[in-house]
Amino acid sequence: MGEALVLSIDGMGGDHAPDIVVEGVNIAAQRNSDVRFLIHGDQQRLGALLDRCPHAKAVSEIVPTEKAIGMDVKASQALRQGKGSSIWSAVQAVEEGRAHAIVSAGNTGAFMAISMFRLRTMEGVHRPALAARWPAANGGYTVILDVGANVEADGEQLVEFAIMGEAFQRAVSGNERPSVALLNVGAEDQKGHEEIRAAARLIRESGVDINFHGFVEGDDISKGTVDVVVTDGFTGNIALKTGEGTARLVGQLLREALTSGPLAQLGALIAYPALRKLRTRMDPGTFNGALFLGLNGLVVKSHGSANASGFAAAIGVAEKMARSHYREEIARNLQRLASASAQSAAAKEAG
Amino acid sequence: MGEALVLSIDGMGGDHAPDIVVEGVNIAAQRNSDVRFLIHGDQQRLGALLDRCPHAKAVSEIVPTEKAIGMDVKASQALRQGKGSSIWSAVQAVEEGRAHAIVSAGNTGAFMAISMFRLRTMEGVHRPALAARWPAANGGYTVILDVGANVEADGEQLVEFAIMGEAFQRAVSGNERPSVALLNVGAEDQKGHEEIRAAARLIRESGVDINFHGFVEGDDISKGTVDVVVTDGFTGNIALKTGEGTARLVGQLLREALTSGPLAQLGALIAYPALRKLRTRMDPGTFNGALFLGLNGLVVKSHGSANASGFAAAIGVAEKMARSHYREEIARNLQRLASASAQSAAAKEAG
Repeated sequence: MGEALVLSIDGMGGDHAPDIVVEGVNIAAQRNSDVRFLIHGDQQRLGALLDRCPHAKAVSEIVPTEKAIGMDVKASQALRQGKGSSIWSAVQAVEEGRAHAIVSAGNTGAFMAISMFRLRTMEGVHRPALAARWPAANGGYTVILDVGANVEADGEQLVEFAIMGEAFQRAVSGNERPSVALLNVGAEDQKGHEEIRAAARLIRESGVDINFHGFVEGDDISKGTVDVVVTDGFTGNIALKTGEGTARLVGQLLREALTSGPLAQLGALIAYPALRKLRTRMDPGTFNGALFLGLNGLVVKSHGSANASGFAAAIGVAEKMARSHYREEIARNLQRLASASAQSAAAKEAG
Repeated sequence: MGEALVLSIDGMGGDHAPDIVVEGVNIAAQRNSDVRFLIHGDQQRLGALLDRCPHAKAVSEIVPTEKAIGMDVKASQALRQGKGSSIWSAVQAVEEGRAHAIVSAGNTGAFMAISMFRLRTMEGVHRPALAARWPAANGGYTVILDVGANVEADGEQLVEFAIMGEAFQRAVSGNERPSVALLNVGAEDQKGHEEIRAAARLIRESGVDINFHGFVEGDDISKGTVDVVVTDGFTGNIALKTGEGTARLVGQLLREALTSGPLAQLGALIAYPALRKLRTRMDPGTFNGALFLGLNGLVVKSHGSANASGFAAAIGVAEKMARSHYREEIARNLQRLASASAQSAAAKEAG
């Protein structure tokens, strides 16, 4: 591995693979001259696509694989039968040090299971977490995690998520001191589950070095009250999907309203450039690229339905993470957390 | 209490009370000739407002109270010091059989605490639940509960919520056979918390008579996949607020886009009637009126920031519930649930 950054790409994952994958690499390659790509998948199909995408072709190498994991395959099945697939091969390249990060738009369950099985969790992390980005009213975005890697999380695990999410936000946004809060049903200290209150106490008492804001509520995710919102994977998954569903509903109603008659259509036509900007802002592709945090390797999940520019956005996230000092930053905070937890356990035993 | 329906109104609760309360009653009174109102609060202020609202005045009686509970007072404090307040008096009217339902736009925590303390939970219901309505893509709305009365719920409590939510949806929408699902992170049987899986089993095995659809995900709330979505109060509160926050963000971005330049403004002006319809559709006031279900009395909570027509919508919900056979319907299903739970407990003991 030379000086250049190397990204390992699952060429066959996603609803529109391999086409949008190669086109996405082509967009990313035009932006950066110092990134190389290993694209895993069907040699013939990928080769034909690369012939049409000269920027990608100049910096890519195909790693041929015999099969691909379908979008409906269960995680357990993918683990048993996934060896030799494009996802497996893409993960292996990072495991063996041939690449710095993996990007896949494939089957989420399979991708997470294979990544976890091959890369294992980092020292000091009990469970990995899936972190997504959500547009915020302040013009930026909110990082929210866990959005579905785990169903439950205890206080210590929530603090680990906070540590990882904060470093992720810093690496991708460039904000040196992102604010962090726990998702709850009210801002007061006594609100919510015991797990959340325990996490808040632990952050305050452990000396973990993050800009901690306490509790926020569901509407704060879109407001952008804080830069990182931490929750368990069950709540986070439901919050994210409820938000996505609402955005889709409003979009549908807006389209219906603006095609409901000739005057509405005329107005929409005149306002089209402005409406198009709005669409870009709310397009899930703009913030595409969820991170599966906490493994020995950088694992980026693209939306399965992403288009080429969405896939390029996910590649951009992988690149920023790979160039950051993410690992060292979270190692220090995880060490503080582990000491505090050990002390607290010892105090309990002694008491 | 004669033939007419009597509604007990907290005259002093909400951000714009008592003005919008009396104006809301005025709107409701124009719609229905056979509803009477007991309005609890400051006699002088309410009297002056009624003088300006002849429809309301013709069918209302003021119940004078000396004080009102502020929007920031904690529930525990409201219980200790709330006696004699407009909320307390409004609840008491239902407790003593002088009215069929209560409507308040006041402090949610205080209103729930006083209602629960005075009215107690119904037989067969372990914990009451707060049920809200959310606009759906099919043109109707989805009932979602619990949106914040409790932080946790076990399997049996979730089934109680399903039973109450189904009857609420039937009473308000007129849909004789609403479909019901549990909110989860996937549709497969093995997904999610043990509580949710237990609830699904219990619905199937207990013979509870509802149109049960299994599990749905967060985006199904806006899609309108089912008519009633059941969850615990923590998840439901966060889902609802995340959805509200998203709708507000899209609305803000749409306003920004349509005022971003002269062409956009012209287009917006031409399309104004269509955009206005969209606004009404997404206005929280359109579906105003959350039900605090499971008490010995009908308790309707209006948004604190509701305007007069929003408050009238909440009155409409109270009226439909009061005219329905809600109590008898849920009693039968609660009885089936209790038998199944008792049998299951006995089987466990015997095993």
